[in-house]
Amino acid sequence: MAEALTVRQLAAAIEAQARGALTLELRGNPDEPIDRVAPLESAGPGALSFLSNPRYRRAALESGASAIVMAAEDADALQAGGARGTLLVCVNPYAAFAYAAQSLAPVEVLQGGVASAAHVAPSARIDPTARIDVAAIVEADAVVEPGARIGAGAYLGPGAHIGARTRLHAGARVMAGCRVGADCILHGGAVIGADGFGFAPFEGRWVKIPQTGRVVIGDDVEVGANTTIDRGTMGDTVIEDGVKLDNQIQIGHNCRIGAHSVIAGCVGIAGSTTIGKGCQLGGAAMILGHLRIADGCVISSGTLVSRSINERGFYTGFFPFMKNRDWERNAAVLRQLDELRDRVRQLETRLKERPDMPHAARDDS
Amino acid sequence: MAEALTVRQLAAAIEAQARGALTLELRGNPDEPIDRVAPLESAGPGALSFLSNPRYRRAALESGASAIVMAAEDADALQAGGARGTLLVCVNPYAAFAYAAQSLAPVEVLQGGVASAAHVAPSARIDPTARIDVAAIVEADAVVEPGARIGAGAYLGPGAHIGARTRLHAGARVMAGCRVGADCILHGGAVIGADGFGFAPFEGRWVKIPQTGRVVIGDDVEVGANTTIDRGTMGDTVIEDGVKLDNQIQIGHNCRIGAHSVIAGCVGIAGSTTIGKGCQLGGAAMILGHLRIADGCVISSGTLVSRSINERGFYTGFFPFMKNRDWERNAAVLRQLDELRDRVRQLETRLKERPDMPHAARDDS
Amino acid sequence: MAEALTVRQLAAAIEAQARGALTLELRGNPDEPIDRVAPLESAGPGALSFLSNPRYRRAALESGASAIVMAAEDADALQAGGARGTLLVCVNPYAAFAYAAQSLAPVEVLQGGVASAAHVAPSARIDPTARIDVAAIVEADAVVEPGARIGAGAYLGPGAHIGARTRLHAGARVMAGCRVGADCILHGGAVIGADGFGFAPFEGRWVKIPQTGRVVIGDDVEVGANTTIDRGTMGDTVIEDGVKLDNQIQIGHNCRIGAHSVIAGCVGIAGSTTIGKGCQLGGAAMILGHLRIADGCVISSGTLVSRSINERGFYTGFFPFMKNRDWERNAAVLRQLDELRDRVRQLETRLKERPDMPHAARDDS
Repeated sequence: MAEALTVRQLAAAIEAQARGALTLELRGNPDEPIDRVAPLESAGPGALSFLSNPRYRRAALESGASAIVMAAEDADALQAGGARGTLLVCVNPYAAFAYAAQSLAPVEVLQGGVASAAHVAPSARIDPTARIDVAAIVEADAVVEPGARIGAGAYLGPGAHIGARTRLHAGARVMAGCRVGADCILHGGAVIGADGFGFAPFEGRWVKIPQTGRVVIGDDVEVGANTTIDRGTMGDTVIEDGVKLDNQIQIGHNCRIGAHSVIAGCVGIAGSTTIGKGCQLGGAAMILGHLRIADGCVISSGTLVSRSINERGFYTGFFPFMKNRDWERNAAVLRQLDELRDRVRQLETRLKERPDMPHAARDDS
Repeated sequence: MAEALTVRQLAAAIEAQARGALTLELRGNPDEPIDRVAPLESAGPGALSFLSNPRYRRAALESGASAIVMAAEDADALQAGGARGTLLVCVNPYAAFAYAAQSLAPVEVLQGGVASAAHVAPSARIDPTARIDVAAIVEADAVVEPGARIGAGAYLGPGAHIGARTRLHAGARVMAGCRVGADCILHGGAVIGADGFGFAPFEGRWVKIPQTGRVVIGDDVEVGANTTIDRGTMGDTVIEDGVKLDNQIQIGHNCRIGAHSVIAGCVGIAGSTTIGKGCQLGGAAMILGHLRIADGCVISSGTLVSRSINERGFYTGFFPFMKNRDWERNAAVLRQLDELRDRVRQLETRLKERPDMPHAARDDS
Repeated sequence: MAEALTVRQLAAAIEAQARGALTLELRGNPDEPIDRVAPLESAGPGALSFLSNPRYRRAALESGASAIVMAAEDADALQAGGARGTLLVCVNPYAAFAYAAQSLAPVEVLQGGVASAAHVAPSARIDPTARIDVAAIVEADAVVEPGARIGAGAYLGPGAHIGARTRLHAGARVMAGCRVGADCILHGGAVIGADGFGFAPFEGRWVKIPQTGRVVIGDDVEVGANTTIDRGTMGDTVIEDGVKLDNQIQIGHNCRIGAHSVIAGCVGIAGSTTIGKGCQLGGAAMILGHLRIADGCVISSGTLVSRSINERGFYTGFFPFMKNRDWERNAAVLRQLDELRDRVRQLETRLKERPDMPHAARDDS
């Protein structure tokens, strides 16, 4: 745990990290010491908590937190309701909380240098302020920029390039020639730059198309554990700045993921698809190949996207779950849905043939 | 292969492993030697096989197995049908078979100690009866309890704790501060304790919320190859005793998986979800975040669970597969299912408006 | 980049690799130098491109490629349209392009031997022409055949067998006793031979069934990054010749994947399922256990196959995606689809009861 800060110091730290984009108003004791963050329910003395949803005002009232960050209207309501703790008021309490958590997290002091049991090729260029941990492997001509850390047993292929302050956790791998920008985090087991899946069918077999492109990752990108990103066939696979990828994701060759898009676990994106900027893909969504998804799209978990999406919006397509016996009945009808539609059409036709029956207002299908 | 046991010895070994909860009745030659287990169809002399489904009685009659474990009613039927082999009779033949297979599996004699090419920090505490294999990495303050084995190239982060007799296969990773109980098995490529996926949106970017909790795994847990379990944001992610996780599973931060639940491959569980005890999740099921699934639930493969389940039961939700041309027709109707329902309502209305028509018994929608 | 070839030399190289199964006709300058492959849009001088779909004839006309491989009818049309570049004409331009790309890819000269920092057990048998890279681990009695390459940090368990010219990329793992044929490629993080997922339920717990079979992989197989293939419970899990597996795939114990089948990323195949020869499984398809899929089946992405498929064909089963509000309306109806069918039946019945109404032609449900 880091040393405690006063609420006033913490507010200043948050504002500094947000580079002026957040302003905090302090209500209560500015000297209250804070040494950690905690959820409302489990917070005790020394903890900062946050309230971002008015539904949890009661939990905030009852919380043991030394301070809580929240929006002005929540603060007003809580104080009207008798809250006595220290409040930090801000238009984006969740972001403020994130910055507070960063300020209070233990600071890792990086000691530059190469661990004695690391394997670094003579032609690799390692900045003296970067750290290569035990059993890490850095192949020929790889470059590691200032302040980066290549974790235990991690791997950099020939010519791989790792930007400043980027962290590879134990066992992350960046294959030959791939580039990772600055301030990125790659978690254990991630594989950046395996071959794309490209084969030409020929005489009942599959002829491999050499995958000679790269993966190019921008700045401030996070790649989850055991996530895989394939290198391009000829051009590159590109992950733009600020993208956040969860665990167990697969991104095919020649995809482009737009800046600041966020992709939850178990998602698959087939080759040559472009995801716009600022998209959000729910867990286990599957995006087919050679598609374009517009900027700002939200795709629900478990949704398979089979066509390009040209319009920003919220898209969904999964089978709602139900009791198995209900599913069995519904699935049986679903298998003959076109027939059910035909039967409705027939009924409509038969009623139309009776001039004394009122007509349907809509029969456009 | 282990040395052969007689059927009598094997029965005693099974009963011992089941700690008195299984009793075996022996019909036939108690001195029949058994040195392995095999399926009914491929079993030959020396093999023990099992019958747990009466449908396979014929296969049992025709099997070349030296002995077969089965329920009493199956044994009676087989003997009435002329079976001459040695039978082991038991109320739970499949469990007895599992214990038999354990008794007959090659015994791995663990030689305690640290391989010369392993990387163990001076402050790590390794029990002398534990084994650290070649190229394994054990960071500062990690603890390895008696009889545990850290496989080749496996990784223990700073302060990680591995319980007695637990086995990490080659390349399994337990990150900083995480705890694994006794008698667990972690397969290759598993990553325990990568960061949870937590970010606050702010000014079009995503601000990382430091993930400072742990993963805490109970006793007798198995974690499949390349499965990932994220550490908690503030509290812990908890896997209770006896849980079995298959390969390629993703478990998000702050989840809790109840004791003796079993989860098949490719499942994803988003953050802060609690799975009850004794649940069974089919392959590629997806459970959204912040949900609670009651004890004893069975979720079919491929089912996306989007709401909490409060009642024990069997739940399903996947699109039934069909020939592609049928799917195309049905999917087209499905896209306008609400309109089809409206048309049915209209028909019902029009018929109601005709007093001479018999009324529908049910029109509650 | 490899040295440049003339178009004539390249055509000869393609024909040689296709072993006479492809013939190329050359139209234009046979001495045009080619040093790489590129897509039509980005190709410039020195690049070979391909046209396999008449829709892209305009892109071919406008391409800066020095040569383009295409079918005769496309070449005729392009020349009629004024194309002046060098054309390679062939019945299967995409396969020709794949072979061209192989001919032009940088040749990796494999220097046999064991890197000084590799870990090779004394009893392992490494052919002198094979290469064991830095930090790779080769356990007792493993065998590595001529020309194979075991990449940095890769792992071969005791008794594992790697065929000639097979390549394990950094961090691929082949567990004890498993066999990989010749000319295979295993990408980083792949785990071949973790335990199958087999447990017997007993007294509220799960008793492990030892997994004592192997994984046996044929020749010319590719296994993607972080893909997992489990060993058989008693018999073997088998991947036949020429199979191509993408990333993040899970194949359960005792499966058999038929020769030259191709499986896209994120697919799961549960235990004891047999996939026929020449099948194509789309991304994130899920095949349940103990099934048989006929030769030559095509399964769409995202489809869950819950029954055996006995007939070659094209099968699909995923929920079509739509705007979320449309999905919500349709999903609500879907949950009561059986009731909607009942209402249609009632309407049909009521109309039938009126002898003056025309009868539906089909009411067979």
